[in-house]
Amino acid sequence: MGDRKVISIDGMGGDDAPGIVVDGLERFAKRRPDLHFLIHGDEAKLKPLLASAPNASPRTTIRHTEKFITMDDKPAQMLRQGKGSSMWNAIEAVKTGEAVAAVSAGNTGALMALSMFILRKVEGLRRPALVASWPTRKGVCAVLDLGADIDADAEQLVEFAIMGVAYARAVNGKANPKVALLNIGSEELKGHESIREAARLIRTANLQMNFHGFVEGDDIVSGEVDVVVTDGFTGNVALKTAEGMVKMVADMLRESLKSGPFSMLGALLAMPALKKFRSRLDPRRVNGAVFLGLNGVVVKSHGGTDGVGFEQAISVAAGMGESHFRDEVAENLKRLVASADAISPAIAPSQEAAK
Amino acid sequence: MGDRKVISIDGMGGDDAPGIVVDGLERFAKRRPDLHFLIHGDEAKLKPLLASAPNASPRTTIRHTEKFITMDDKPAQMLRQGKGSSMWNAIEAVKTGEAVAAVSAGNTGALMALSMFILRKVEGLRRPALVASWPTRKGVCAVLDLGADIDADAEQLVEFAIMGVAYARAVNGKANPKVALLNIGSEELKGHESIREAARLIRTANLQMNFHGFVEGDDIVSGEVDVVVTDGFTGNVALKTAEGMVKMVADMLRESLKSGPFSMLGALLAMPALKKFRSRLDPRRVNGAVFLGLNGVVVKSHGGTDGVGFEQAISVAAGMGESHFRDEVAENLKRLVASADAISPAIAPSQEAAK
Repeated sequence: MGDRKVISIDGMGGDDAPGIVVDGLERFAKRRPDLHFLIHGDEAKLKPLLASAPNASPRTTIRHTEKFITMDDKPAQMLRQGKGSSMWNAIEAVKTGEAVAAVSAGNTGALMALSMFILRKVEGLRRPALVASWPTRKGVCAVLDLGADIDADAEQLVEFAIMGVAYARAVNGKANPKVALLNIGSEELKGHESIREAARLIRTANLQMNFHGFVEGDDIVSGEVDVVVTDGFTGNVALKTAEGMVKMVADMLRESLKSGPFSMLGALLAMPALKKFRSRLDPRRVNGAVFLGLNGVVVKSHGGTDGVGFEQAISVAAGMGESHFRDEVAENLKRLVASADAISPAIAPSQEAAK
Repeated sequence: MGDRKVISIDGMGGDDAPGIVVDGLERFAKRRPDLHFLIHGDEAKLKPLLASAPNASPRTTIRHTEKFITMDDKPAQMLRQGKGSSMWNAIEAVKTGEAVAAVSAGNTGALMALSMFILRKVEGLRRPALVASWPTRKGVCAVLDLGADIDADAEQLVEFAIMGVAYARAVNGKANPKVALLNIGSEELKGHESIREAARLIRTANLQMNFHGFVEGDDIVSGEVDVVVTDGFTGNVALKTAEGMVKMVADMLRESLKSGPFSMLGALLAMPALKKFRSRLDPRRVNGAVFLGLNGVVVKSHGGTDGVGFEQAISVAAGMGESHFRDEVAENLKRLVASADAISPAIAPSQEAAK
């Protein structure tokens, strides 16, 4: 395929696939006339959709398969039976080098399992992580891990920080991302030992990282930092809690504004302002979680998204696929290992003494 | 003091104390002409404030002290030096039986440390927990632990469930509170072993508990359950994240509505609806976190609250002080211990085999 950059797409993943997938693809193709696409799925369904996608269709190749993974399929089962499915094939195209990144709105557990299995972990890295960008007061903040795993020790947290920084540079266009570890507040209860140890590691290893120290939950959206690092359990809970809160607030506002003729008229007059408000919080604007730490880029779109959201997920995949993400992570992992080798014998006794 | 119910109040805790404290007291005293109050702090400051609080003053006794704990004081230090401070004396009055509950808007860490030290843990309970009510789509939900400690094993989570249920009955007026354990979603990654073990314990011990199983972060506000149980680290992160999100959303909405003459006019017309919306999310409405599991009730008000918020914190203290909370928790702890004694020898080998 020469110099052509190709994005590989699971045509059948997501609640409203393949309709929203091709819709998102067409929107993205219009913005980026330089990229090419592979779409995996049922040709009989994809072909007519692509026929009315004038920007995408000349640059899109359909790879037919009738097999696809549903939201109810169990990840472990899909490792054995998923071969040849649209999701599997989408990831496989990254492995073979045909595509620079894969995108799917399908089953998260299956996507993580298949990605790990097909692409394998980056050498030297202990665990992959799921990252996504959150809307903040000043733009976006990358948060990881959002649930690739449930625990994380100090070194994994440092790995997450390394990957998060490279992601913020690649996808969010931050030149020198400020990174922080998520912790809780009171002086006396400064969080798990793993978090404090991770802070020490980041400070002592020569990671060339703009490290901010600890932040609390409310700092994720304050815009003070560009990357927030936590374990997958905490990250997942924080993400879901925040999503639930924002949705409740939006619904309550809508109800309130419909509660009488004056408020309805008021809402009508304020409509442009309310729309701008909504768009700043639009979850589609930040759709696309990246599975970091594999030999290849895989992006998970929200399963219930629409064309606008799927376009954003492809955009994240393209940003990652075109970036120096892998080289940067590899460089920093080397620094981490080097510093651990150099420091640990010297540090161990003094740590022991401090206890 | 006979049958008189007394609430003990730290007059000097909080950003705007003692002004907001006496304001909150007066508001609460107006609603509850049957209760009496002890207020601890600088008489020279409290006396003139009480003079213009006609409902509270006839039923309030000032206990003078010039010593008080600031937000910057270290909890460990206050254990040694805090004796005789307004916070210390407020808690002490619960210990001596003079008051049924204490309220403070002061330093959280110091309040937790002093409460533990003065009141001691309930016998049979392994750890106390911090609980608060969150606004939900349908009312409120009690969430604990919010940071009394950072970890929680299975038995502690069960203890939290027991205390959370009793709290929801005492303070939120739920007859048969539905309780759930906070977890993350995917089938394959069903959270920490401690959480699954806690679910097994609740199901096997005869706790007379309306147990819902697992919920995710977004279910805290859905209104499906009345009590959500998690460890202190996760609970604190979830709380802070949600607070940060809601504050950001509210600020963005305000900015948007001020962005032009039409939207300002619209906002004016919709003002009553917007006010109703705001009041549903008003953090003052749910102010007052309770430190559960001690031999006495201590309520922590938000440090930055106003009179309305402090009134709510006193109301939580009164609800707890008047309830059968302690008896209910004691009963259920007995059931938990009994079932653990009865079950553990039989269960241990099969658990071992399952590994």
